[in-house]
Amino acid sequence: MVQRVGRIAVHVLIIGAAGMVGRKFIARIAADPACLGAPVTRLTLADVVPAVAPAVPAGQITTRIVVGDLAEADFAEALVADRPDLVVHLAAVVSGEAEADFDKGYRVNFDGTRALFEAIRHAGDATGNPAGYCPRLVFSSTSAVFGAPFPDRIGDDLALTPLTSYGTQKAMAELLLADYSRRGFVDGIGIRLPTICVRPGAPNRAASGFFSNILREPLVGREAVLPVDDDVRHWFASPRAAVGFLVHAARLDTTRLGWRRTVTMPGLSATVGDEIAALGRVAGPAAVALIRREPDPTIARIVAGWPRAFDARRALELGFTADADMDAILAAHIEDELGGHVPGRAV
Amino acid sequence: MVQRVGRIAVHVLIIGAAGMVGRKFIARIAADPACLGAPVTRLTLADVVPAVAPAVPAGQITTRIVVGDLAEADFAEALVADRPDLVVHLAAVVSGEAEADFDKGYRVNFDGTRALFEAIRHAGDATGNPAGYCPRLVFSSTSAVFGAPFPDRIGDDLALTPLTSYGTQKAMAELLLADYSRRGFVDGIGIRLPTICVRPGAPNRAASGFFSNILREPLVGREAVLPVDDDVRHWFASPRAAVGFLVHAARLDTTRLGWRRTVTMPGLSATVGDEIAALGRVAGPAAVALIRREPDPTIARIVAGWPRAFDARRALELGFTADADMDAILAAHIEDELGGHVPGRAV
Repeated sequence: MVQRVGRIAVHVLIIGAAGMVGRKFIARIAADPACLGAPVTRLTLADVVPAVAPAVPAGQITTRIVVGDLAEADFAEALVADRPDLVVHLAAVVSGEAEADFDKGYRVNFDGTRALFEAIRHAGDATGNPAGYCPRLVFSSTSAVFGAPFPDRIGDDLALTPLTSYGTQKAMAELLLADYSRRGFVDGIGIRLPTICVRPGAPNRAASGFFSNILREPLVGREAVLPVDDDVRHWFASPRAAVGFLVHAARLDTTRLGWRRTVTMPGLSATVGDEIAALGRVAGPAAVALIRREPDPTIARIVAGWPRAFDARRALELGFTADADMDAILAAHIEDELGGHVPGRAV
Repeated sequence: MVQRVGRIAVHVLIIGAAGMVGRKFIARIAADPACLGAPVTRLTLADVVPAVAPAVPAGQITTRIVVGDLAEADFAEALVADRPDLVVHLAAVVSGEAEADFDKGYRVNFDGTRALFEAIRHAGDATGNPAGYCPRLVFSSTSAVFGAPFPDRIGDDLALTPLTSYGTQKAMAELLLADYSRRGFVDGIGIRLPTICVRPGAPNRAASGFFSNILREPLVGREAVLPVDDDVRHWFASPRAAVGFLVHAARLDTTRLGWRRTVTMPGLSATVGDEIAALGRVAGPAAVALIRREPDPTIARIVAGWPRAFDARRALELGFTADADMDAILAAHIEDELGGHVPGRAV
């Protein structure tokens, strides 16, 4: 349950609010302002590009849009100066870009996150009440904190041996989150998100983009490139499931976590072939034919270092829930993004 | 084997050279300049206090003493400007101090280590040959990267869940070491040292100090304070064994590590009671009577979060070797520090 000591209004700060998961989380809050346990009345939406305020009845939620880079001096301090009750940190340079630009990845994914934690730690200093501020902080981490070789199913007690700089930066931030929580500076929970599928909108620079592209694009009659083999297995969650993780993480009794503050979220383990089969069932062979195979050794090498399946029993015990199967993931996408209709479907 | 591309002389940079392990490593090099596989002809000894040059025949080893703080701007750059072949990084704020001073611990143990890695990464920039410099870097880590609850024996694939800021800082540095190695910026190997026992010299601020104090002090007729119960179990290595780990890490074929660049060193799992029994066998009941029990809840709480025993098979397979038992650890101390003689021994 989000802390509300001495106030009725709940103020939520979302960093990375213009991103896909951020937007969907905002939409969820707008649709159900009490979904976090107490009515949200203030939103601060931060990102490197302007986030979009939710469409809600006038006066229901006061929204502030802030544009800036978490790693810039004083930006994090400004964000937490008025002490939001809940901080949701989703901002990151994605894996492909963090691998291509070593300095940028560390600056944003690690230094930016650290700057946020430090700003929260010191947010009470000016008021002379440093001990009085310890907000819930939900941090989005990634299954890329793990690195091959893997056991068949990866449990929460496996060593983090990332094989990308992105995974390294997230793993370091997980360690910081635990220490800042143990010290009482923040009430942190890290959630290791599966790869989001079907990711709506335009392709981004994530190396994992093709997992969504090969479903999203053919569904609307467009070609998509598949850079890896059909038997590549991966770990997925729908945007709907991801938003559910955030909501649950914001409300969870964190004393149940002890000092192990990051939890691998439950997901669906499926192959590229499973994705294509589900696409065929929903949209027919013409859609499947829009998948163009163009093997890319760089992408294949990165993906080979990623995990395939997890033992997420800890998350399940904590009440997090996953998608049932690839057909359910596709159905959620068609409902949420395409108005329940598959344009390319031959009737 | 230490890299010696295009040169005969081997130049070793030791950071934390004035510390106990550093001094013993230097003494080992002085006694056997070829112990690293090729004759050491240059030593750069860095620490926050002046390190002591080894006593060697004139001209055999050129030694430079450098005083400074690794976390200070440009200090790391200056250390690696002339591209040492081997960098041994032993400098750290110890666990008790890192817990007491949050900012100092992060600044030295994490930011200082990161500054060193960055300096190495950029050491070739000025010469226009950035890809040409990738020295072996031996990084001393700690078993405090693990945190309770533990399995009976802790393997190298267990998640790092430190319960101190010191352990967090070392765990983060381990992750950096792996990523900088994977990127080809450094040829890193991290070695998780057991608690050093018997640590010679004056007590330091490490929370683990009493494990050595209760042996070292009574051996020379002085009182020592024991802040925990006799059944507290811990994981030990003698200074001799620790120096052996450094020498082996400097020479090891790191391709055997893959990208999992940090290895838990083999040690001796023993209780405080085992220590006291060995002391009694060597120095008699009068020495044992010098141990004064003064329970300290803070120390006890910190120590309760530390590991007790490891499965160090990976290190053993890589050729690292441990002490046989507590009597051997005591015997090594008496030989190396007391000239083979126990002053307080009633004959």
